Amino acid sequence: MAINLHIPDESEIFTVPGVEIGVAAAGIRKPGRNDLTLFRLAPGTNVAGVFTRNRFRAAPVQVCESHLARGNGIGALVINTGNANAGTGEGGLAAARQTCAAVGKLLAIEPARVLPFSTGVILEPLPVDRLIAALPRAVRALGDSNWLAAARAIMTTDTQPKIVSRRVEIGGKTATITGISKGAGMIRPNMATMLGFLATDVHLPPALLAQTARAIADRSFNRITVDGDTSTNDSFIVMATGRSGLKVATQSDPLYAALVESLAAAATELAQKIIRDAEGATKFITIRVERAASHDEALKVAYAVAQSPLVKTAFFASDPNLGRILCAIGYAGIEDLDVTRTNLWLDDVLVASGGGRHPAYREEDGQRVVKQEEITVRIDLGRGDLADTVYTCDLSHGYVSINADYRS
Amino acid sequence: MAINLHIPDESEIFTVPGVEIGVAAAGIRKPGRNDLTLFRLAPGTNVAGVFTRNRFRAAPVQVCESHLARGNGIGALVINTGNANAGTGEGGLAAARQTCAAVGKLLAIEPARVLPFSTGVILEPLPVDRLIAALPRAVRALGDSNWLAAARAIMTTDTQPKIVSRRVEIGGKTATITGISKGAGMIRPNMATMLGFLATDVHLPPALLAQTARAIADRSFNRITVDGDTSTNDSFIVMATGRSGLKVATQSDPLYAALVESLAAAATELAQKIIRDAEGATKFITIRVERAASHDEALKVAYAVAQSPLVKTAFFASDPNLGRILCAIGYAGIEDLDVTRTNLWLDDVLVASGGGRHPAYREEDGQRVVKQEEITVRIDLGRGDLADTVYTCDLSHGYVSINADYRS
Repeated sequence: MAINLHIPDESEIFTVPGVEIGVAAAGIRKPGRNDLTLFRLAPGTNVAGVFTRNRFRAAPVQVCESHLARGNGIGALVINTGNANAGTGEGGLAAARQTCAAVGKLLAIEPARVLPFSTGVILEPLPVDRLIAALPRAVRALGDSNWLAAARAIMTTDTQPKIVSRRVEIGGKTATITGISKGAGMIRPNMATMLGFLATDVHLPPALLAQTARAIADRSFNRITVDGDTSTNDSFIVMATGRSGLKVATQSDPLYAALVESLAAAATELAQKIIRDAEGATKFITIRVERAASHDEALKVAYAVAQSPLVKTAFFASDPNLGRILCAIGYAGIEDLDVTRTNLWLDDVLVASGGGRHPAYREEDGQRVVKQEEITVRIDLGRGDLADTVYTCDLSHGYVSINADYRS
Repeated sequence: MAINLHIPDESEIFTVPGVEIGVAAAGIRKPGRNDLTLFRLAPGTNVAGVFTRNRFRAAPVQVCESHLARGNGIGALVINTGNANAGTGEGGLAAARQTCAAVGKLLAIEPARVLPFSTGVILEPLPVDRLIAALPRAVRALGDSNWLAAARAIMTTDTQPKIVSRRVEIGGKTATITGISKGAGMIRPNMATMLGFLATDVHLPPALLAQTARAIADRSFNRITVDGDTSTNDSFIVMATGRSGLKVATQSDPLYAALVESLAAAATELAQKIIRDAEGATKFITIRVERAASHDEALKVAYAVAQSPLVKTAFFASDPNLGRILCAIGYAGIEDLDVTRTNLWLDDVLVASGGGRHPAYREEDGQRVVKQEEITVRIDLGRGDLADTVYTCDLSHGYVSINADYRS
């Protein structure tokens, strides 16, 4: 029931030179499904990551951060679904390190050059023996065209695989950007986690790549919300293999801006796919706040609207309930907001201005917009010239059912 | 379907000397139901109010604030249900002022000594003519024993009237405290508003009463959340008639602490009744955060847990889903939280410690607690010695149905 979620066929998915992927079935939670994914990265690849700010950080997140902090030279990623290895204490850390050691041995690299990721049930010990036993099969399966298989193998309760792939011309050369993501709420029932992996064959030095990953995450994965819950395992990884021959050395390089735009667009598409497949979602909603005095206040208003259960249920009901949106704007926390300067549009229908309903607004126009599967809420604060955007979905009976019934 | 919401019978409701109440049917939204409530306050009564911090403040809230700012001597409150007079611009302000003028004329007091309150549909003009036409009937109905009738007359989509009444011994004298409230989410579908009115026959001077009202609100109405939405009309009013002969002149008066405790207890009961009757609620949940370094961080954690849709749906499902609670604690915004010092109880069952499931925890113990209609979540942060408490309810199919289906 995902909303306009495009799954590219194999011909639309470009391999990224320097990246090989293998998947295997380790029987971590269910037998017979591919639940283990291995990335092997060619020497010279740089890797950067952005991780959850939740204080209950899962064991693999802690190990990733510590391995990335040791400098670069990351040669492999290992991802399991079915178990998040979160809330598992010292035993969980040991399991994540054991996994890295096993991968390192098979690929002949140091364990500290391996990044581990887990997603699935939390508070249960990772069945690390089964995971390690399946690793040789994942190694044998390594190949450069397994992106779609990987997108499927990292799913938990996602209903659709999430993959983006594109070729872009930058400075007269062709670069490839391909990535996958998973997640169907910021956190699924017991199944924690949003994961995103984006690879390009452009070269970026480690420090610039780290900064770029953060900037991209801020424009994509940090701009989506289903229920406001931030998981213990959220991770977003950018890999730059350099195999296209295209190099971007510094932020002032004239090609840098174009590259960031391309990477951010790909990451945004991956992030939006999480919303399109969100728990119980029937509508994809873009909340754009314009003419704000700061990005911070634009985001405050956007998130207040995006996370209001009343606004979200109104969209589920295809009800253009303006009062709920105005109300959320009003409590977003801008102390000196002048509501008489605020304008509100649903797509291009001006619905409210001057602190109340716009005189020319007709209910049937609002109704027409909110019946659509994709809706843009545009809020003009009349305070400055900054804008920001957040993506969300509606709140439906499906959300309650999925989250209430999951363990029963 | 309210949860353990006690409706006192007439014998349990104490009148407050100096307060008369009359209700009438004005046909504001529906014919034939009492939707208009008038309070007449004896001379010498002091009144203080705490109002919504939403920037989209309804017209009656703006008029209340301006009338209260002119000093005291408030002689009447007029409350209508069926229409919130919110998002109504200049016309709404004029309607609220017209209402005050009409009440003033009937009771022979200045219009500025009248406080208006509205609750109901927002963004629609208040039918002020019908309201004013019904006022003489409300005046004729004035009497000191109409508290329960008033509790019913201010309801919107509340399923039950909310009333509290008690007599307390303070300094060897008997004081009476009686109050009513309404609201079934922080905001109902289109029906905005939480309202609370608390009267006592103790005398407090205006400045002390204003400070007391704020302190009480912080311990009661500011400690409840259904969906995190703060309405445009929320108002809490404390009336002190002084007719008991009991006077509290300053904060250092030895009787002051006892009086505040009694008023706060009554206000908390009124506030909790809103949760007990909240939209779709099937569970009443107390979130208590202990050993915090500040009240601010205790509240951050309490609200993160109380407003997490995942936690709330788990309670609806009677699922002791610890991971979701730990996850919410983790993203509450305490940057230096040491999760290994955090303990979590469901009632008196220790479910998590040291950053994960407690070794002795058995699922059936958690299950037993969450099956109850009333549940206490107790979180020990291990950081200091401050504590705070928030009251909330679960998130059910009922909530989605009520809010999605309301206008359709």
